[in-house]
Amino acid sequence: MGFFQKLNQAIDKNNSLLCIGLDSDINKLPEHIKSAETPLFNFNKEIINTTFDLVCAYKINAAFYESLGIEGMQQLKATFDYLKATYPEIPIIYDSKRADIGNSMQGYVSAAYDFLGADAMTVSPYLGHDAVKPALERAEQACFVLCRTSNPGSQEFQELSVSGAALFEIVAKDVYNKWNMNNNCGLVVGATYPDEISRIRYLAPQIYLLIPGIGAQGGELESVLKAGLNENKKGLIINVSRSIIYAGTGDNFAQLAREEAQRLKIQINTFRAV
Amino acid sequence: MGFFQKLNQAIDKNNSLLCIGLDSDINKLPEHIKSAETPLFNFNKEIINTTFDLVCAYKINAAFYESLGIEGMQQLKATFDYLKATYPEIPIIYDSKRADIGNSMQGYVSAAYDFLGADAMTVSPYLGHDAVKPALERAEQACFVLCRTSNPGSQEFQELSVSGAALFEIVAKDVYNKWNMNNNCGLVVGATYPDEISRIRYLAPQIYLLIPGIGAQGGELESVLKAGLNENKKGLIINVSRSIIYAGTGDNFAQLAREEAQRLKIQINTFRAV
Repeated sequence: MGFFQKLNQAIDKNNSLLCIGLDSDINKLPEHIKSAETPLFNFNKEIINTTFDLVCAYKINAAFYESLGIEGMQQLKATFDYLKATYPEIPIIYDSKRADIGNSMQGYVSAAYDFLGADAMTVSPYLGHDAVKPALERAEQACFVLCRTSNPGSQEFQELSVSGAALFEIVAKDVYNKWNMNNNCGLVVGATYPDEISRIRYLAPQIYLLIPGIGAQGGELESVLKAGLNENKKGLIINVSRSIIYAGTGDNFAQLAREEAQRLKIQINTFRAV
Repeated sequence: MGFFQKLNQAIDKNNSLLCIGLDSDINKLPEHIKSAETPLFNFNKEIINTTFDLVCAYKINAAFYESLGIEGMQQLKATFDYLKATYPEIPIIYDSKRADIGNSMQGYVSAAYDFLGADAMTVSPYLGHDAVKPALERAEQACFVLCRTSNPGSQEFQELSVSGAALFEIVAKDVYNKWNMNNNCGLVVGATYPDEISRIRYLAPQIYLLIPGIGAQGGELESVLKAGLNENKKGLIINVSRSIIYAGTGDNFAQLAREEAQRLKIQINTFRAV
């Protein structure tokens, strides 16, 4: 089963467009978890066990695990293994923002799909189509291409004007019209730029958008959903990380994460119902 | 000591602009090494021990190690540890092409500089300056920003015209004039595009260029050196991977790698002397 089929089933089953980002930063974990032998994994497991029925996907950001070296990678792998064994119906997006040429990209693809078992990965567009091809050719998995990122400085290159269009619009069009031969592409668009979400939705009417930046980064749900929902009231994966996973810092952190996820899921669905 | 000081000392000591890329692909290693417990590390160690006096740097591409999961990461770390313990005067460039925002980039920086002990890393520009800042702020280490990559499809975005300049030229100018506050930036420019190397050398007269694509990818030394050398006959790190490390496939692979590295070093110096 391909990524988008799996995603749609998870969206329908849990009635949710919410994706939880497991950006598990060792410095921000509750004190009683920090001292565990595998703190990131223990933390993730608890978050997952209290939120699995509220999400359409989990997104796992490689950076927080790589920073801890081998031990971090072991906990990254353990998190994937746990999710796949326990909640195999929930797709996992590996947020690694990779791109390289030829054989090198093949290595990143193997790492994401064969070693970790991810259902999708994020990739960077700057090197062009041929660089990302080894990922695109894995038709069962999906590639989310960085298009308009949520950081304040993303306009430096992404907004440059190329014959009247912004660079991120060229990326959106190229991905939609040329890269998407296996119907396995999505785009990453920050919640902090709802006008750009509208523009991308116009240029790429059917494509799924992965939307980071809600919550801690200041993106607002209503404008994002108005701008980005497709005609089936889907087409968006709303990723929230910090405001859910760090909702609490005590023994009850996972319960508080559930409450915040529940609140966001309902809020998203309220706007979907409009 | 900062990266560029270390690099210049290595260039002078070994009289070499050659950098060897340890793109050690498990599928391409000599048969007698493939079956070892740590094949990538054993391979690297032999290549390093026969070439350390011919190079100004080693470049290690993360993808070939990540593809082997935890075992790959252990061999990546072992390669860094070995190089730092045995040949501490040779700088190591971690070719990981990372970029992410805020805390996430901090994670990649810790992985490269604190966990592995790299002297430099490669980064992708698409997200803009603020995304790369945690790497730029590490003034002792250097950031090589992807500018014009060596792959055939790199023109898709990199050659787009922005008010008469190509996107890669805007990247070169921004990095040179705005990102380089700590004098720790370089640019990655493929050997396959010598005209673009000239253009970048004009826009960023002093900056070091990391040049992949000689050898297996078809880039030619003479035109690259003519286009890219600075007034001190330096300013270039000529990276060669496959044509050196896979020069032989038998027991004598390391000796054949040395001979090829020696040949390239001399050829580069011939053109530097012109």
